[in-house]
Amino acid sequence: MEKIVLAADLGGTNLRMAAVDGSGEILFRTRIATPTSGKQADIVSAILEVIKECRDGLGGNVEFAAFGAAVPAIVNSRAGMILRSPNVPELNGLDFSGRFSKELSIPVVLENDANAAAVGENWKGASKGVANSIHVTLGTGVGGGLIIDGKLHRGIDGTAGEIGHIAVVPDGHPCGCGSVGCVEQYASATAIERIARELLPKYPESALHSRSDISPLDVYNAGMEGDRLSLETFRLVGTYLGTALGGLVNVLNPEAIVIGGGASAGWTLFIEHLRSEIFRRAFLHPAERVRLVRSELGDDAGILGAAFLASESVLGNLHNI
Amino acid sequence: MEKIVLAADLGGTNLRMAAVDGSGEILFRTRIATPTSGKQADIVSAILEVIKECRDGLGGNVEFAAFGAAVPAIVNSRAGMILRSPNVPELNGLDFSGRFSKELSIPVVLENDANAAAVGENWKGASKGVANSIHVTLGTGVGGGLIIDGKLHRGIDGTAGEIGHIAVVPDGHPCGCGSVGCVEQYASATAIERIARELLPKYPESALHSRSDISPLDVYNAGMEGDRLSLETFRLVGTYLGTALGGLVNVLNPEAIVIGGGASAGWTLFIEHLRSEIFRRAFLHPAERVRLVRSELGDDAGILGAAFLASESVLGNLHNI
Repeated sequence: MEKIVLAADLGGTNLRMAAVDGSGEILFRTRIATPTSGKQADIVSAILEVIKECRDGLGGNVEFAAFGAAVPAIVNSRAGMILRSPNVPELNGLDFSGRFSKELSIPVVLENDANAAAVGENWKGASKGVANSIHVTLGTGVGGGLIIDGKLHRGIDGTAGEIGHIAVVPDGHPCGCGSVGCVEQYASATAIERIARELLPKYPESALHSRSDISPLDVYNAGMEGDRLSLETFRLVGTYLGTALGGLVNVLNPEAIVIGGGASAGWTLFIEHLRSEIFRRAFLHPAERVRLVRSELGDDAGILGAAFLASESVLGNLHNI
Repeated sequence: MEKIVLAADLGGTNLRMAAVDGSGEILFRTRIATPTSGKQADIVSAILEVIKECRDGLGGNVEFAAFGAAVPAIVNSRAGMILRSPNVPELNGLDFSGRFSKELSIPVVLENDANAAAVGENWKGASKGVANSIHVTLGTGVGGGLIIDGKLHRGIDGTAGEIGHIAVVPDGHPCGCGSVGCVEQYASATAIERIARELLPKYPESALHSRSDISPLDVYNAGMEGDRLSLETFRLVGTYLGTALGGLVNVLNPEAIVIGGGASAGWTLFIEHLRSEIFRRAFLHPAERVRLVRSELGDDAGILGAAFLASESVLGNLHNI
């Protein structure tokens, strides 16, 4: 019988759950709004509820082989523990794998959402067949994941991949991580908004002055119409991201950099600035070698990565018998 | 019969050659001044001469199993090519492995010297038994090498590990690599000299004013005597190096950072500044996890790493038969 796994992407807005087969096909999917009660027990119950929906959706008597979950948090993936979860603080300190493997009696794999997205893109998306790649997720923050020799690089405790917390303006904007000047403060959706607002006084003619509130999409749309403030915003975003990635190109000599997440929609406005900053910062050979590509799986990268890691854990268990 | 390999460390001042057995014991070693004629052929001849000395030193009829060479250059280790050799420009573009495997009729492995040092320390030195480590060589420049899952991380073309070329002052001092503000310009022996000279006007009482020329050792010695300029120099060195390494701790979650090279002699004056900057920049868990350790092999790290890689290449060849 083909193995079917449960795969989750547990975000601050929605808890998404899917049943995925060994080829990466999503057989059933559902979602529920992330509970806002502030109680950990309510989040756990909501996760169990969408798991039940997946089971019912497949006819009720399916046996899931494993459960993989992608979470927007610093995790110890080896221990299955959530260490620091800024967007869903109720999950701080949760022994996620322990809790759900007890409940479901199947192996449970926990992974940071950006790391899971890297695995998903490497399995079914933009970096398929590429042994060494850097994955960047431009969302509310800047997430990252490294694929090294065909495997997710987790580091000694599974906290690796935090590309968003490389300093690009060493005395710059305070970051939620406690440091200052992290690239997350200069290349995320949040950063696009802030930078655009900061530039308003310098661009009195900008169309963005007519907006009471500025969203990253507004900045993008105005940029596509030639708005100079918006173009400058994306130039800065590309340049700062290039400063961080140029250093990583020197350190890792990757074959590809995959860029996804909501703010990657601004690709056409930032990519040439990103590319030229990588060429400015990195040695010629690795700069020429690395391909810059857009993610192909969109919102499904994380859930497919979680599914892959869950499947892999079961194969691992079989090997160990 | 135990395999004996040739291992070289080809520096701008000396070409060092050793015969090394499979346990890492150096059976014979010799050196020759690096020819300064500017001719590639003279360097090749000098290398062949010290190889002959190693052969003669072991009684003349020894069969070397392989030849590993560490060079201060950007290399394509997969192709065995020297891409960019700033200190020994005669080697630019040399098909090193092709040239010497033809001459010696044995496998030849080429590696960047800092990468080789990382391998040496991982084999016989400070990171022995550690699966994930970052190696930093503080010399004329700042070199680096990554050990990931117990293996040297070479990247797609073998140019990986260039930790010295992470930007820490994005609009800072011009770097020999073509970029600006690389950590090499703020934490190398060269940087110690320059920073100390730049600080002279701010410290009129400094003992360093009495010197016509300032060496990194002068700065260290003065710092150990409490000279404030010298202490500030090493504070800056530690802080800048910590900015680069803090980002890498977030990205790689390593178990150890090994610091070697001539300027690591300043350890006592910079290490606490380096450590506190890593804590400032990196997430708490990976910052607490990583151990900062001094290299144990000194000048032999590169030659032992080259020996290991040469041995490994022969084991690989045997496996392929």
